[in-house]
Amino acid sequence: MPPEKPYPLDEILHPKSVAVVGASASQQAGGWVSRLINFGYTGEVYPVNPRADEINGLKAYPTVRDIPYPVDYVIFNIPARLAPQIMEDCVAKGVKAVHMFTAGFSETGRGEAAELERQTAETARKGGVRIIGPNCMGVYCPESGLTFNPAFSREPGKVAFIAQTGAGTIRFVYLANDMGIHFSKVISYGNAIDLDAPDFLEYLAGDDETGIIGCYIEGVRDGRRFLEVVKKCLSAKPVVILKAGLTEGGAGAAASHTAALAGSGLVWDAFFKQTRAVPVNTIEEMADMLLTFSHMPCPGGRRVAIVGRGGGIGVIATDTCERAGLRVPPFLNETRRQLEEIIPEAGTGARNPVETALGMAGAADFYNRGLAIVDADPQIDLILIQLAVDVYGGRQPYLKEQLVSTAEVLINTAQALAKPVAVVFGIGEDINSITAVLEARQKLLAAGIPVYSSIEVAARCLNKLIEYNQWPETD
Amino acid sequence: MPPEKPYPLDEILHPKSVAVVGASASQQAGGWVSRLINFGYTGEVYPVNPRADEINGLKAYPTVRDIPYPVDYVIFNIPARLAPQIMEDCVAKGVKAVHMFTAGFSETGRGEAAELERQTAETARKGGVRIIGPNCMGVYCPESGLTFNPAFSREPGKVAFIAQTGAGTIRFVYLANDMGIHFSKVISYGNAIDLDAPDFLEYLAGDDETGIIGCYIEGVRDGRRFLEVVKKCLSAKPVVILKAGLTEGGAGAAASHTAALAGSGLVWDAFFKQTRAVPVNTIEEMADMLLTFSHMPCPGGRRVAIVGRGGGIGVIATDTCERAGLRVPPFLNETRRQLEEIIPEAGTGARNPVETALGMAGAADFYNRGLAIVDADPQIDLILIQLAVDVYGGRQPYLKEQLVSTAEVLINTAQALAKPVAVVFGIGEDINSITAVLEARQKLLAAGIPVYSSIEVAARCLNKLIEYNQWPETD
Repeated sequence: MPPEKPYPLDEILHPKSVAVVGASASQQAGGWVSRLINFGYTGEVYPVNPRADEINGLKAYPTVRDIPYPVDYVIFNIPARLAPQIMEDCVAKGVKAVHMFTAGFSETGRGEAAELERQTAETARKGGVRIIGPNCMGVYCPESGLTFNPAFSREPGKVAFIAQTGAGTIRFVYLANDMGIHFSKVISYGNAIDLDAPDFLEYLAGDDETGIIGCYIEGVRDGRRFLEVVKKCLSAKPVVILKAGLTEGGAGAAASHTAALAGSGLVWDAFFKQTRAVPVNTIEEMADMLLTFSHMPCPGGRRVAIVGRGGGIGVIATDTCERAGLRVPPFLNETRRQLEEIIPEAGTGARNPVETALGMAGAADFYNRGLAIVDADPQIDLILIQLAVDVYGGRQPYLKEQLVSTAEVLINTAQALAKPVAVVFGIGEDINSITAVLEARQKLLAAGIPVYSSIEVAARCLNKLIEYNQWPETD
Repeated sequence: MPPEKPYPLDEILHPKSVAVVGASASQQAGGWVSRLINFGYTGEVYPVNPRADEINGLKAYPTVRDIPYPVDYVIFNIPARLAPQIMEDCVAKGVKAVHMFTAGFSETGRGEAAELERQTAETARKGGVRIIGPNCMGVYCPESGLTFNPAFSREPGKVAFIAQTGAGTIRFVYLANDMGIHFSKVISYGNAIDLDAPDFLEYLAGDDETGIIGCYIEGVRDGRRFLEVVKKCLSAKPVVILKAGLTEGGAGAAASHTAALAGSGLVWDAFFKQTRAVPVNTIEEMADMLLTFSHMPCPGGRRVAIVGRGGGIGVIATDTCERAGLRVPPFLNETRRQLEEIIPEAGTGARNPVETALGMAGAADFYNRGLAIVDADPQIDLILIQLAVDVYGGRQPYLKEQLVSTAEVLINTAQALAKPVAVVFGIGEDINSITAVLEARQKLLAAGIPVYSSIEVAARCLNKLIEYNQWPETD
């Protein structure tokens, strides 16, 4: 008998057992069964393959029906034409949810493929089985041990991400993990023939494990419900949205990707005006914005102190911040006077931006004294520190030690400051600089200090953070 | 006797002998004398220091007057207060030009410092000595062997760069060298009390060694002359301008950097409307734009084929290109039909963007056949190839071999194509991916294929290239 109500999402995302239909006997190392085992999924895993007795050391079954134990969750890794039959098996077995990795349905634009999709969905609906997909990577949930990539971080975090893109999600999680962002749930949901963005968002709105939500959206079927659930999420936590397919070419590409109706730019402009959801345009910007919400306390205003580089680099940084909507006001005279006492070349670099003592280790030393002076200026709301390998005598053998010790000094100093601190740290060009920057950057990120790859990226994210927090006043 | 006319710039930039006043006896390794020697300057070098007999193995002289040989070019590495006296020595010696590295003049905002600057300039003017600076890094000219950093490339190239920033120029040259951009002349000219942007530009307009010009400008004294010389340059070669200090905060920062009057945004808007000079906002964008002019033949129009990633990443790439002003039209049906024959998952990825065969080496193999098909589509003006470590099974031990072989396949294939090709190659996050990407990227750049760090950067540069070539029709 099908259940009266569909299974709640939290139960679906924490299955006690997973069957993999189409478990690969020939590609065991990279298959779905090994992904779960290697990631450390602790529930039961049942390979299903009529032509194998054992896969990855586990007994294989010919069909889902043949598994003699309860099965919560099934992954479809089979050709599209087999989907309706296997869904029948899942209904008969009382499976709660199916992740259809399988592609080749409505997104192909072919009638018979769309019909297969419709049949499969109908069978599932009548039988009370929920579907994630098809044409998607499914769920990555460190807490429950589900994953589509065993290389992802096993550490749970407070960020949730849902997306109508598989490769994009893999790219995003790698990027985010390397920035020190960890996840509560990541769901790549493809064509969304059953569970769709509003279902996931409604669940995430009330999910205590989730503090920040990111979405990659191509199309929305029920715009009104989508707006409602996004508002519900926003009453509790920030939501960052990458709406893809907003240009003419992009809309066409989205249609052939997930059969999505992309919606017009005007509708989405109105959507972002009505909500405080934060729009972003690329996967990199999504990661940077989620990092901002994860690590950055909200500044009291938009007046930035730029610390680290004066001269032309400081002028460019100032222009870049102001173009993004921030302000870089001159420090108070008293602040400048105090800074000039500790900067060797008086007069040139204490106005804001303030140039730290150039020449190697001096720049690290500056942070101990200089940052406290800048922090005390009432004209300043936040501090942006511009690190650069060239300040530290780039391409020298001692570069890594110097950058790491600078990071440590910064971490200690930043804790004592009243104003929020962010760091800009360009990755450098040659492999030695890059190695040094990566190590110092990891230290800063691990200490909860946001690090951006350029002033442009930092200014854009910080301005969006401030706009989010001032909403609706600034709108 | 002072010369009737000032020495021509070409002579100034190719001195037969250089004296370094304030040559450091204690910091020989990092001093100006060692920079010239280590870089391979083949003219005579005369250290000047009243308290040393020998510096870097060369005889030192107490003053410039004491050097018993002709001196073409003098570098001032002395406190500002000594500048007027040493300029007298240079006049007496018949020096052609002085590079005043020394800072602490009008940029400090102090009256007595400005007076020192005025005195020094007056002495030089009367004595026929040209000045580069003060408060600047001076000249890097691989052909003549002058440099302010011995780590810069010794290979001459066709790009010239002039800038009112020292640290910014160092950062820029490192960045550009690593992108495979080589230089005819780089001049960091600081406060510009004698030779100024219009002088350098006038010279570069007629310099056969220079094919592309980049400028970082904070302020311009004679706007009319500046406009004239930029137009003169543009009649012969592209000019890319980073005008710093265009925002309120940036103008203040520029004033305290080089005492420049930044000029209003409106004036500069009008300037860029009147010329086909290409505006950029950051040092990174300057390098990317000069790379574009160096490596990219101009496409016949703005219709881009995106090759490499379909799915959500393809949709985002499409939106990003169209937002930047490019167009990503669907391929002709015939093109799609031919592509579908060589792509395993028919239907989903052949519309434009076209997804190359995913899964490791397949993507490299695609280029041989797929690129020719795309190239033949009359709807397409240029081809943008999106490489990504994840396509090649990122974070695998064989990644580097795969990326390098992909680069080689691409280089061979691109030569046979009629349409211009550019590559987007994100650097990756972990050190293994980065190492692999850097090596593959170097191969592409060395073969003259432009490589950009993101679709956003590529789209912005390519659109500016097309606008430059269509000027004034699109304006």
